[in-house]
Amino acid sequence: MDRPVISLLTDFGPEPAAICRGVMLSIARDAQVVEISHDVRKFAIRDGAFLLWCALPYLPVGHHVGVVDPGVGTARLPIAIRTGRGDVLVGPDNGLFRPVAERLGGIVEARALENRALGLPVRTMTFHGRDLFAPVAAHLAMGTPFEAVGPVVPVTDLVDLAFPRPAVAEGVLETAVLLVDNFGNIRLAGLPGDLEAALGPLRPGDRLVLDAPATPDRAAIREATSWQGTFGEVPIGVPLVYEDSFGTLSFADNQGNVAARLGLAVDRTLTIRRSQPAG
Amino acid sequence: MDRPVISLLTDFGPEPAAICRGVMLSIARDAQVVEISHDVRKFAIRDGAFLLWCALPYLPVGHHVGVVDPGVGTARLPIAIRTGRGDVLVGPDNGLFRPVAERLGGIVEARALENRALGLPVRTMTFHGRDLFAPVAAHLAMGTPFEAVGPVVPVTDLVDLAFPRPAVAEGVLETAVLLVDNFGNIRLAGLPGDLEAALGPLRPGDRLVLDAPATPDRAAIREATSWQGTFGEVPIGVPLVYEDSFGTLSFADNQGNVAARLGLAVDRTLTIRRSQPAG
Amino acid sequence: MDRPVISLLTDFGPEPAAICRGVMLSIARDAQVVEISHDVRKFAIRDGAFLLWCALPYLPVGHHVGVVDPGVGTARLPIAIRTGRGDVLVGPDNGLFRPVAERLGGIVEARALENRALGLPVRTMTFHGRDLFAPVAAHLAMGTPFEAVGPVVPVTDLVDLAFPRPAVAEGVLETAVLLVDNFGNIRLAGLPGDLEAALGPLRPGDRLVLDAPATPDRAAIREATSWQGTFGEVPIGVPLVYEDSFGTLSFADNQGNVAARLGLAVDRTLTIRRSQPAG
Repeated sequence: MDRPVISLLTDFGPEPAAICRGVMLSIARDAQVVEISHDVRKFAIRDGAFLLWCALPYLPVGHHVGVVDPGVGTARLPIAIRTGRGDVLVGPDNGLFRPVAERLGGIVEARALENRALGLPVRTMTFHGRDLFAPVAAHLAMGTPFEAVGPVVPVTDLVDLAFPRPAVAEGVLETAVLLVDNFGNIRLAGLPGDLEAALGPLRPGDRLVLDAPATPDRAAIREATSWQGTFGEVPIGVPLVYEDSFGTLSFADNQGNVAARLGLAVDRTLTIRRSQPAG
Repeated sequence: MDRPVISLLTDFGPEPAAICRGVMLSIARDAQVVEISHDVRKFAIRDGAFLLWCALPYLPVGHHVGVVDPGVGTARLPIAIRTGRGDVLVGPDNGLFRPVAERLGGIVEARALENRALGLPVRTMTFHGRDLFAPVAAHLAMGTPFEAVGPVVPVTDLVDLAFPRPAVAEGVLETAVLLVDNFGNIRLAGLPGDLEAALGPLRPGDRLVLDAPATPDRAAIREATSWQGTFGEVPIGVPLVYEDSFGTLSFADNQGNVAARLGLAVDRTLTIRRSQPAG
Repeated sequence: MDRPVISLLTDFGPEPAAICRGVMLSIARDAQVVEISHDVRKFAIRDGAFLLWCALPYLPVGHHVGVVDPGVGTARLPIAIRTGRGDVLVGPDNGLFRPVAERLGGIVEARALENRALGLPVRTMTFHGRDLFAPVAAHLAMGTPFEAVGPVVPVTDLVDLAFPRPAVAEGVLETAVLLVDNFGNIRLAGLPGDLEAALGPLRPGDRLVLDAPATPDRAAIREATSWQGTFGEVPIGVPLVYEDSFGTLSFADNQGNVAARLGLAVDRTLTIRRSQPAG
């Protein structure tokens, strides 16, 4: 038998995450545990959902625990989800898994974690990662049938979560900051195809203007930039708009931190136009 | 044979910790290495001791290396400790393992690491994690008998370390900041039972006042708060006192960083009272 | 068969590194993956080269992926290097592996990664760690012959990278900041033997003076310090010069962060003299 793969993404920082790993290994001693991140922005469910959306398609089919869970101990449901690809996703029902489940073949079945025998003997109100999600995932990875975790939850009852969507108009794409990655690069709402729908076909070097209207605590931003294939096609410190490695739109400074330079944070609205009307 | 579990907690940051892991794997190629944290506050032996106290009971029985070692290369003893649960703890004799050993069944035997054949051929004066603790733990995990590490050290000769204790008085608990976790939550000295001994039985919602007297470099703090079961029972940004997931007392802001908001650091003294006399 | 060892050093931060790990495990399910660091100073090829130089000699012989790659997607070559010790190094040809290869028995052979069958089906322009380096290393770790990756590249064609070298004069060593480690300790260019060639034989306690001339944005620094065997031989907060655990020269504050205290950054030039003429 292959060693079971169990992944873990949290906003916990190192020590609580290691405790979850310890609980997993107490049940699934030979598991191949993949720590995706424990540095998710704290309480930022959508950041976690987006990072799972990016990462899980590149992991082996396995059991994946995700815990960004500001509602721990309240009425929010603990759940497990089976995906079309064969993965099992374990964590709180707060939308964290909705986007990535679509990329893993969709939700085949969701169940509430009601079988207390699969958790630790003591379930505290503030650490379900350790007391519930980690042990349930490890038991499932060791062969406990999915049905054993608890009753079916209709997919329509699950909390939904959607990423912001771009708005395409003639000559302008309205988008938004979806995530600031750890380079300070800006992941934008939308695809290169959305930008081309607004601006027409793009070739490397095409000149663009990016605008962020003022907000109550931030001045307006206007940046001259260009469409490029990769960072090194512009000088160091110069910004570019590009198709990132996940096929979506991004904005970055070559060898710089554009989010810090411009003070751009999650959900800030941006528009992108050509600096000169196309042909 | 199960894969041996070797855990590692240090204040080293990533690269020196990875070198220790490399040394371990050179000896115990199939070990399941659990990185507990390498972000322990630098040189903070008590922080390390507390994090081990929290974590090791949730790990499988195994070999656990702990290195927060400001005295590296000086006269402080390198040791290995066998616990009642069957773990082996390897690191400097500076108190790092004393509290957690109690939770693992107590110290069965301690030995000084004098057998140079179990360390790397060259032992430097500044990196015993790599040169001594990692290889000794890996050899023990592979079956080297515990007795081979060196002579017995009487438990009474080991450096002791105790966590601060609360003082219970009628109507007031005097406690102190034991650790600031990576959420900025405050782990306090004492148990919920200590708070109830001072204030009488507690129900969720009971109103409390937390006071921290002024210090030479900090103004006095007074916070209106309440006793709660979990974070989400108060609005975002509002503080609560609660039984944390380790059964001890904690103080936090719901979805916030109370330590940063109030400027609370380790060892600050605090008192907790009811905001109105009970019953 | 032993589980293959694959190590990974990047400037990626946690999530992109985890994706690389996921790709590796999809090919080499039982690999023992060693994360050396994903916190390398971003785009700092020489920092990465130095950290590999420090770390890899302590890891088992294996497949080692290194990605500090500001030129990703440009004309820089993707390569694999076989070392005299038997390791395989996989990453960009930008000098990252040159220093460590010398410590692993030298470069036996280098090849360009031209066999697209060993990478992911889609190769983006901005994430070769995931699309190319991780899968190539995993395939090689699983037994794909080294020759299969692509054509030989003459070693003389590889990008070179050298660490700064000290200048020995009578009574003074001129050196430079090679790396600031995560303690804020300063790794200096040169060996203790270089310092002794300049100053004569050194004994613990010998008094030294360290000078850093002014730079356009930094005032000159003069620090009274001493030669010591280890940190704890001076009081807390006091600086020392010492042979670090890699056999090279370092400068640190005992239980402090000397780089932050003095504002010392990579490449700053320093001189070290005796505070009084020897003998």
